Amino acid sequence: MKPFAPKPGMALAGLSTPVPVIDEAVLAGNIARVQSYMDEHGLAFRPHIKTHKIPALARAQTDAGARGINCQKVTEAEVFADAGFDDILITFNILGTEKLARLAALNDRIASLKVVADNGITVAALSRAFANGKPLTVLVECDTGGGRCGVQTPEDALALARQIVGSMGLNFGGLLTYPKAFSEETVERWFAGAVALLKDAGIECPVVSSGGTPSLFSAHLVPTATEHRAGTYIYNDRSMVRAGHCEYSDCAMHILATVVSRPTPDRAVIDAGSKALTSDLLGFADYGYLPDYPQAVITGLSEEHGVIDLSKVTGERPAIGDRIRIIPNHTCVVSNLFDEMVFHRDGLVSRVEKVAARGLVW
Amino acid sequence: MKPFAPKPGMALAGLSTPVPVIDEAVLAGNIARVQSYMDEHGLAFRPHIKTHKIPALARAQTDAGARGINCQKVTEAEVFADAGFDDILITFNILGTEKLARLAALNDRIASLKVVADNGITVAALSRAFANGKPLTVLVECDTGGGRCGVQTPEDALALARQIVGSMGLNFGGLLTYPKAFSEETVERWFAGAVALLKDAGIECPVVSSGGTPSLFSAHLVPTATEHRAGTYIYNDRSMVRAGHCEYSDCAMHILATVVSRPTPDRAVIDAGSKALTSDLLGFADYGYLPDYPQAVITGLSEEHGVIDLSKVTGERPAIGDRIRIIPNHTCVVSNLFDEMVFHRDGLVSRVEKVAARGLVW
Repeated sequence: MKPFAPKPGMALAGLSTPVPVIDEAVLAGNIARVQSYMDEHGLAFRPHIKTHKIPALARAQTDAGARGINCQKVTEAEVFADAGFDDILITFNILGTEKLARLAALNDRIASLKVVADNGITVAALSRAFANGKPLTVLVECDTGGGRCGVQTPEDALALARQIVGSMGLNFGGLLTYPKAFSEETVERWFAGAVALLKDAGIECPVVSSGGTPSLFSAHLVPTATEHRAGTYIYNDRSMVRAGHCEYSDCAMHILATVVSRPTPDRAVIDAGSKALTSDLLGFADYGYLPDYPQAVITGLSEEHGVIDLSKVTGERPAIGDRIRIIPNHTCVVSNLFDEMVFHRDGLVSRVEKVAARGLVW
Repeated sequence: MKPFAPKPGMALAGLSTPVPVIDEAVLAGNIARVQSYMDEHGLAFRPHIKTHKIPALARAQTDAGARGINCQKVTEAEVFADAGFDDILITFNILGTEKLARLAALNDRIASLKVVADNGITVAALSRAFANGKPLTVLVECDTGGGRCGVQTPEDALALARQIVGSMGLNFGGLLTYPKAFSEETVERWFAGAVALLKDAGIECPVVSSGGTPSLFSAHLVPTATEHRAGTYIYNDRSMVRAGHCEYSDCAMHILATVVSRPTPDRAVIDAGSKALTSDLLGFADYGYLPDYPQAVITGLSEEHGVIDLSKVTGERPAIGDRIRIIPNHTCVVSNLFDEMVFHRDGLVSRVEKVAARGLVW
């Protein structure tokens, strides 16, 4: 029923809940503040589009000065290439017939495509897929303490760089890490060591890329890095407030929900469950922050219900039918749950953007 | 690139990962076993479509003998009405202009539509919306210990039933609960008390509905109930194995993933993260069960990566490029993440169904 679809000029109060909404002014402020920091420190900035999955927002980021974008999947990169982005880094070990075929097709149609690898099997598969076409640039992913992917030592980074350099169809693109937050000293030591080894071996290292939003404003403490990548900073969320990266007032995304039940004086039930807020705890004890009821605790989620403990709320408590606002624990995962994202300025819808790269799971 | 799209006859090994797949034989067994139990005990069975969100599966459930379906949202019910289902129960307090308008339109076009309410504000709003059209049937939702929505006592159930009976445009449809698992004795006492109060008040109670998969095979221990609702049983998952409802061999959904990195001897990283497995823990310490590596522990998820601790794996460990199978903690939330669901028989794709009611958040 189209009469109810969100459209520009509509008041937020007219939207059906649950619905995430993005404050245009906060969004613009987040983009400008981070780009300005990167410019000040001479760091190339490559935003990760996973947070928003929306080409128009990536365009705002590159218009502000970002150099290229970061995707996590070939399918995501295809969406952004279709939207005109021609400098894309995919930070994933890409394996599998279909993915490699699509990666090669993508490499043929954009100016700069880069991927990462942390092992020789991935490098060998990439080489087989690219040996007879336009070469692909491959960075070595380094585990500097994050505990996810990555070679374990600078010596291993050198060995894998040698393999890339010696592989048909591949160019060595540099080093990359997704670090543990607040570990700048460790990352710098790791990168500096690896860069020295590469230099001794006569291997040019064009890019040294670190990343993450939580300690983004300490990126200058890794002087060996030439590039920083970050996603969450564009919307921000409760976990970024906890990390000290921002204030609640810098959180551009609020999820609007309606109180649908007040079974007891201390319990409210809202129409936002794990399908709206996600069950990402990220170390928190509950599922989101209510700026208008800071003592309220979202104790449980089922798919369509959120259960709120109001026992510690000292002021007025929300009534059935009331709208509440929630700042999610983790904003990126919320984006993946909605086909469209609603933006607003001063409480009026400014635009509705398709979350074009939502649901691209592989 | 259509050549790679899953289609009937394709081997599962040819599918790009991560991808959830459903075993047709296990699925059919789950439907038959539960329906047979309900038939044996003379209980009307109303499957909850939240688990699959696919009309063809709901049709298999009603073909087996289920009487009507259960949805959680008006938008979900619309999808199933479009597919020809004409007996739908929506177990939610429905509030808001748009939702009520769509609910009225839905009521006009299907034979039997029912909703629940647990408070007078919801009942009053429903009455205003339905006063001048075809009446809507409303059941009273009862909190028998589940701690989510529901009136708190049989006396409150009677009071709300009286309000429904006295409201223009509404018919009283009975009592409903989403109980705490393994609480049959409590539910029976609660329902029996409320039914007695209704009888004394001269209010007919056509339906007494309980639900849930975990203790589904104890539904006969609530003799006052006339109906049982359940969703998860059709696919089953790790939490249902823990509850004793089924065995791992009854889990129809496996998520196929590829090992993309082995940074250390004890660590594997797969290409399935929270966008494939969801971050639902449901009380587990990790994010899924690996039937082929039962001692492996999925310790962490980011959106596209799953980190697996192999330190306790005594046999062979998976190598980069290997496919692994995961039984998710919670199957319903996985369905919501995928636009299509792939079914197979003996390792060959049998059909691909659109997850038609996916992403209908409000």
